[in-house]
Amino acid sequence: MPFELSNELLQQLQEAVEERNGSRVIDLLEGASYVDIADILYEFNTEDSKYILELIDDETAADIINELEESTRVKFLRVFNAEEIAEYLHHLDSDDAVDIINELPNKEKDEVIVRLPDEEMRGYVLDLMRYDEDCAGGLMAKELIKCNVNWTVNQCIDEIRRQAENVERIYSLYVVDNDEKFLGRVSLKRIILSKDNTLIADIYEPEAISVETSMDEEEVADLMRKYDLDSVPVINVLGKLVGRITIDDIVDVITEQAEEERQIMAGISEDVEEDDGVWMLSRARLPWLLIGLLGGMIGARVISYFDEQVQAVTALAFFIPLITATGGNVGIQSSSLVVQSLATRSAFEKGMFTRLIKVLSVALLNGLVLSAIVFGASVVLSMPYDLAFVISIALFNVVILASFMGTLTPLILEKFGVNPALASGPFITTANDILGLTVYFTVAHILL
Amino acid sequence: MPFELSNELLQQLQEAVEERNGSRVIDLLEGASYVDIADILYEFNTEDSKYILELIDDETAADIINELEESTRVKFLRVFNAEEIAEYLHHLDSDDAVDIINELPNKEKDEVIVRLPDEEMRGYVLDLMRYDEDCAGGLMAKELIKCNVNWTVNQCIDEIRRQAENVERIYSLYVVDNDEKFLGRVSLKRIILSKDNTLIADIYEPEAISVETSMDEEEVADLMRKYDLDSVPVINVLGKLVGRITIDDIVDVITEQAEEERQIMAGISEDVEEDDGVWMLSRARLPWLLIGLLGGMIGARVISYFDEQVQAVTALAFFIPLITATGGNVGIQSSSLVVQSLATRSAFEKGMFTRLIKVLSVALLNGLVLSAIVFGASVVLSMPYDLAFVISIALFNVVILASFMGTLTPLILEKFGVNPALASGPFITTANDILGLTVYFTVAHILL
Repeated sequence: MPFELSNELLQQLQEAVEERNGSRVIDLLEGASYVDIADILYEFNTEDSKYILELIDDETAADIINELEESTRVKFLRVFNAEEIAEYLHHLDSDDAVDIINELPNKEKDEVIVRLPDEEMRGYVLDLMRYDEDCAGGLMAKELIKCNVNWTVNQCIDEIRRQAENVERIYSLYVVDNDEKFLGRVSLKRIILSKDNTLIADIYEPEAISVETSMDEEEVADLMRKYDLDSVPVINVLGKLVGRITIDDIVDVITEQAEEERQIMAGISEDVEEDDGVWMLSRARLPWLLIGLLGGMIGARVISYFDEQVQAVTALAFFIPLITATGGNVGIQSSSLVVQSLATRSAFEKGMFTRLIKVLSVALLNGLVLSAIVFGASVVLSMPYDLAFVISIALFNVVILASFMGTLTPLILEKFGVNPALASGPFITTANDILGLTVYFTVAHILL
Repeated sequence: MPFELSNELLQQLQEAVEERNGSRVIDLLEGASYVDIADILYEFNTEDSKYILELIDDETAADIINELEESTRVKFLRVFNAEEIAEYLHHLDSDDAVDIINELPNKEKDEVIVRLPDEEMRGYVLDLMRYDEDCAGGLMAKELIKCNVNWTVNQCIDEIRRQAENVERIYSLYVVDNDEKFLGRVSLKRIILSKDNTLIADIYEPEAISVETSMDEEEVADLMRKYDLDSVPVINVLGKLVGRITIDDIVDVITEQAEEERQIMAGISEDVEEDDGVWMLSRARLPWLLIGLLGGMIGARVISYFDEQVQAVTALAFFIPLITATGGNVGIQSSSLVVQSLATRSAFEKGMFTRLIKVLSVALLNGLVLSAIVFGASVVLSMPYDLAFVISIALFNVVILASFMGTLTPLILEKFGVNPALASGPFITTANDILGLTVYFTVAHILL
């Protein structure tokens, strides 16, 4: 069972830390993993956190620092000098070390890198710093176990022994030729089950999937998810093996993708959390609220064109929310179905025409049902027939138009390289409000 | 590089299948993995798919069937008899086999199970059928490598050899005592690096994390994500080792979670895709559209109470969309921030009071900015001061109220065990529409 974090334990820890009672702190943290201790550090200020970390062995402390959220870690590392930071980073995988170095102020980056105690790691870090964060090169770690295709199983085991300290989790051994060119993989299980003098050439899988350093992280995630891979080797343009990406990094990518999409759909323009400051939260939310406001002003302008209609039949005003809400709902439904298709793209795309015919069929069906219900309800509530007609016909048209808007917008955004989820956010509601009002009052203008 | 699926290849395949030219089909599928072939099968009808599968070895065919989407697989398996299905399932892991059996018609389930050629697997399947699909028991596979704490490394390697065919990917060996009670794990790397006669007791990690069969799948996902686990052992209430969950299953859980949330936020009430039929798509979308419609009717009723105001100042009607849109946007922003917090829950929860104070601060700030802008714009557009006042004051109140609605609704839903993302969907917009209209016209009634 995982270590239990309780408010009681937290209180005891806070007392112990305040009294600078090191042995008590260590006692209380007995059994806590680095993940648990990272959770605990969020409850302490930077000075106290530093005190706690210094009581723990460097390797665990490094894992804890790696586990902290970026914003907390940035603040936290300010109280350490370059030497201390380098000492911790030395215990991490190269990809994690680079991520942390990239968060440091520019002039501190080099200071930390030159102080890394291990020359091999310095090389790894400098190599990885060249890659963009969002591509395979930016995700990969340099630590992996590589064996030559001409080796025997025994030579491989020696190599594993040599690298054991650096490579925490071994999924596969990657097989290269004399020029370091990637050839395939051999599983650890296969190594165990083969005789000591078996040649790697006889047991490796030559058709292993690999990715190039420049591949986008979401493509890497899709590929690993699709083929159920636990790790994937990364090769450069020359076909040389340069790193590997493990599934835990991909789990992070998928989680971040989902979070980003949620924020976009909700109209939040920066990566914020409930825990962030009031100012930051306001700033992240204002842009889309302002766009909504602008949409509202344009909507007001549209209705004011039909001032005479409203004055003649004030009941027209009553159904404004019904029209705008339905347009918004239909638009978001349509766009998120497209966003979902784009996310789980099939190998053979259906043509645009087939897609739109289907959108039209669904829209016709839903539009008919909704209009009929509204017409029925209006009659029951003894509204004048002509008004009931106007509302039903306008609603029907709004459903059709909003369906097309909702379907086309994400497709167009995707074409221009913009995240299509943007079409499921306040954007689509705002656009549909204006469109819906125009349709509604135009129909009223014609029929009344 | 993965096998390339092209429309050209598809056409050639379709011709070859039509001519029942088996050797040509096999040639064309050269290098295609089971994932690729599954993608291809979506383009064929059931009879042709069966023909293709029968050309392929049973093990790959089983993987292909496992890879198909549920709705396609259900249709597809109808053309196979219980004997044939059992023959394929025999090649899958027990958890995948059970998932497929659960999709069969009830009377066929038993027929397939009794025809499974391997007695051990029959036992596994019957055991797994007892668990709910959404809990750890329903996710786990029975296939794993288990070793007794008193064994030597050499005995473990023998066990690996014995199980090698059944357990495709070995991450760790699980250590049990003489009563099958779970004690801990030992990594494959450790086995390779240890001498043959080393005792497992001396090298295993006793503090390994495990989960109980009843744990909810989302909790399992959170745990594995948090502790970066590639696999986790599952124990029953007696502490006995009964299965293991691997990270690829968790990747699926996380992906499904994100998809489910997207559909809920978009107001789609069934698990549908763009590819589904027109009727199914309409049915999935209508419930929330109808709720939106009902909201619109209630909104109409609210405005009709203030008929006199609208008749006196028709310009009041112009700003209805502005009020409802802003309320909706603020509500969705607030609720999705809460949903995000709930998804990445920290160990020490902030109290409700702290949370609401912050919500209030952000709402006050955003409300002030928006009201000021609307007031400014109204003056610039030379609207009467009193109307500008009404709109600004109403807008300010709507922002505050919608923030609270958006914050409290997901928290309340979560308390009642309902997916809190529901609060970010059409529900919150509909509720905020009614609330916003009430506030707006009440303010107008008081001030005009």
